[in-house]
Amino acid sequence: MSVKSFPISDEAINAFAEKVGTPFHIYDESRIIETAERIKKAFSWNDGFTNYFAVKALPNVNIVRMLGSLGFGADCSSLPELIIAEKAGITGERIMFSSNDTPDEEFRKAYELGAIINLDDITHIDAAERAIGAFPEIISFRYNPGPERTGNAIIGNPVEAKYGVTHSQIADCYRLAAEKGARRFVLHTMVASNELDGSYIVETARMLFSLVREIREKTGIMIERVDLGGGVGIPYRPEDNEVSFEQLGAEIHKLYDEMIDYPLAVSFEMGRAVTGPSGYLVSRVRHVCHKYKDYAGLDATMADLMRPAMYGAYHHITVPGKEDLPHDHMYDVTGSLCENNDKFAIDRMLPELRCGDLVIIHDTGAHGHSMGFNYNGKLRHAEYLLRKDGSIVRIRRAETVDDYLRTQLDEPEAVI
Amino acid sequence: MSVKSFPISDEAINAFAEKVGTPFHIYDESRIIETAERIKKAFSWNDGFTNYFAVKALPNVNIVRMLGSLGFGADCSSLPELIIAEKAGITGERIMFSSNDTPDEEFRKAYELGAIINLDDITHIDAAERAIGAFPEIISFRYNPGPERTGNAIIGNPVEAKYGVTHSQIADCYRLAAEKGARRFVLHTMVASNELDGSYIVETARMLFSLVREIREKTGIMIERVDLGGGVGIPYRPEDNEVSFEQLGAEIHKLYDEMIDYPLAVSFEMGRAVTGPSGYLVSRVRHVCHKYKDYAGLDATMADLMRPAMYGAYHHITVPGKEDLPHDHMYDVTGSLCENNDKFAIDRMLPELRCGDLVIIHDTGAHGHSMGFNYNGKLRHAEYLLRKDGSIVRIRRAETVDDYLRTQLDEPEAVI
Repeated sequence: MSVKSFPISDEAINAFAEKVGTPFHIYDESRIIETAERIKKAFSWNDGFTNYFAVKALPNVNIVRMLGSLGFGADCSSLPELIIAEKAGITGERIMFSSNDTPDEEFRKAYELGAIINLDDITHIDAAERAIGAFPEIISFRYNPGPERTGNAIIGNPVEAKYGVTHSQIADCYRLAAEKGARRFVLHTMVASNELDGSYIVETARMLFSLVREIREKTGIMIERVDLGGGVGIPYRPEDNEVSFEQLGAEIHKLYDEMIDYPLAVSFEMGRAVTGPSGYLVSRVRHVCHKYKDYAGLDATMADLMRPAMYGAYHHITVPGKEDLPHDHMYDVTGSLCENNDKFAIDRMLPELRCGDLVIIHDTGAHGHSMGFNYNGKLRHAEYLLRKDGSIVRIRRAETVDDYLRTQLDEPEAVI
Repeated sequence: MSVKSFPISDEAINAFAEKVGTPFHIYDESRIIETAERIKKAFSWNDGFTNYFAVKALPNVNIVRMLGSLGFGADCSSLPELIIAEKAGITGERIMFSSNDTPDEEFRKAYELGAIINLDDITHIDAAERAIGAFPEIISFRYNPGPERTGNAIIGNPVEAKYGVTHSQIADCYRLAAEKGARRFVLHTMVASNELDGSYIVETARMLFSLVREIREKTGIMIERVDLGGGVGIPYRPEDNEVSFEQLGAEIHKLYDEMIDYPLAVSFEMGRAVTGPSGYLVSRVRHVCHKYKDYAGLDATMADLMRPAMYGAYHHITVPGKEDLPHDHMYDVTGSLCENNDKFAIDRMLPELRCGDLVIIHDTGAHGHSMGFNYNGKLRHAEYLLRKDGSIVRIRRAETVDDYLRTQLDEPEAVI
């Protein structure tokens, strides 16, 4: 069970929405900090522990900087994400660069920043060396267990995943990297996404601890860090189970003590679990329509939140000021994008809605704004941060029509 | 059956790709013009015929202008799309404005341009009047047949569709609009998407012709135009059936003669059928990897083409210079986005691929570039137009990291 609260009073959010206009995402700094501190504490038994925040979850430099100040690193997988980490003051080995199908310029930028480069394929050993013109002293490999793990519903079966090196390749990867001059070694995996069963993640730790021993036996190479990736889920539905960081930390600690006999650092790349529940999409009901079904049309669209349309994902919706009214009206809650999947909720029981009502769409702090597209000319909106002191700051402006048209050439330009 | 050809020689596309860099979309002007002319000819029996090109399919002002010069109108459903039509020189009743959950400013802009405003709901009669401060002389309603039609696989069941007015509301809509001062009336529907069965579209014409008569009987109002919407599909797979515009025109003509006894204009809002097969995403193989499966990683991503990931859609892939080699290698063709659904094809039989090979992804002329997102910091690439005279012009530049970061504020900005 999780409680779906909103950190601003009905009166205050109405006044704020009136002032800045809707829709917008707003993130709760206190809750992000509290979550980050809980994660750190749960793994404080491990000297080298860090969480590389998955930048793609919430690629706003202000958020990444805040997490950096709490000691988190950055998990980057593209050039723009590397640049965001750099702007946020996170450099060197505080960056885990986990890309796939990587372009040369990204290998170079990651190397220039001193990031831990996490190679996705055995052929990337040569590719990275060629791109960089040297081989990094510290190197990581992404392990794909294939048939040895079942994956989970969202990320799919590891055998079908485009990522990582196979079990039969992994020892050779470290051997080859050592031959290239690598001296320090990291082992990474990412086999789940939005997993609510903590025991699955503990099993991932067991898999990596066991692989660390196997690699040592086969190659003599001592892995200095295992990165369990992200995949820690959040309870989008009020009735969903919540992963306990404390229990996760304790169980992995127990395994570690049983299986590991030297100072092996542990890390995660949690993104969703860090910021997801601390984000809210605040939107206003624009039209209420009675067709073959009842529709509440919002001023937000898939451009602001794609998960329901893309994955059929559930996001909880509350109506400030109507929390205690009977939820006796069934709506499809829609956006205005000219695509029938632009729906935030289907057959959702809510209090009776009127045009102008504010609605809060919960758990948009990860893979919310960052996934938005501009299809149908729809624009992406602003991001705000609710500070610990109760003030609200803007951390991203809304897109304008000019932004939308920016790359379009008004007249054709000759090329050949 | 459709033939998957590419309008540029292997040598020329290699030289061009070398010059401008990959990936990019390129559109074939000759083929777009030929398609537009075929559509016009197939419906030349109808005096008022037009096709309002669905701008969201390919929202590039240069394409929309070209189609405008051929006599096509523009189907717009957002403010940016209205602005693109205006920039392309398409104004007045050559614009069909078919939005849903419409904001006031879009009603105003459409009215200001003299567009035919297509109302999506009975409540929008008041909403449009309030927004505009007047009621348009010409008005359209979008009809949703609900249980009377079954829809098709892509657009879903009309009963579940957020669009349009119901059968029990439609006559009242025209009556109310007439009371508000409307004098000219249009009837619109859109019940299919990417439909390859021409008879389904003929049935849509029958439905609208019948409704025109019913509305006249019930209200005395003579509809001056029926708009059958878009939904004419294209053969993404070589073995797919191709809708014959000529047959469609002839069959609808026959129905029209049977059912309609006054000069009723007919229109469509074809987008995909006009430009879809004339667009190609040209990309280069960046890495070939052997994991539990074989992967060909391209330099394009979901940011360039989302349909395979979003809908599991098929896009044909050819390899210039290797068309005649045995297609005896099975690949997942992937992009570099850090999301396992960033795959252009799964288990696709292709000739053996090598790093650096160009690949052509077919049928990206609609809902290709326009649907791209920036998730994971991935950028959207350039668009080119292959002119009739064989020259190639650039009609959109590639996005840059600066574009990506443009709305992000480096430091928080105080609001309250």
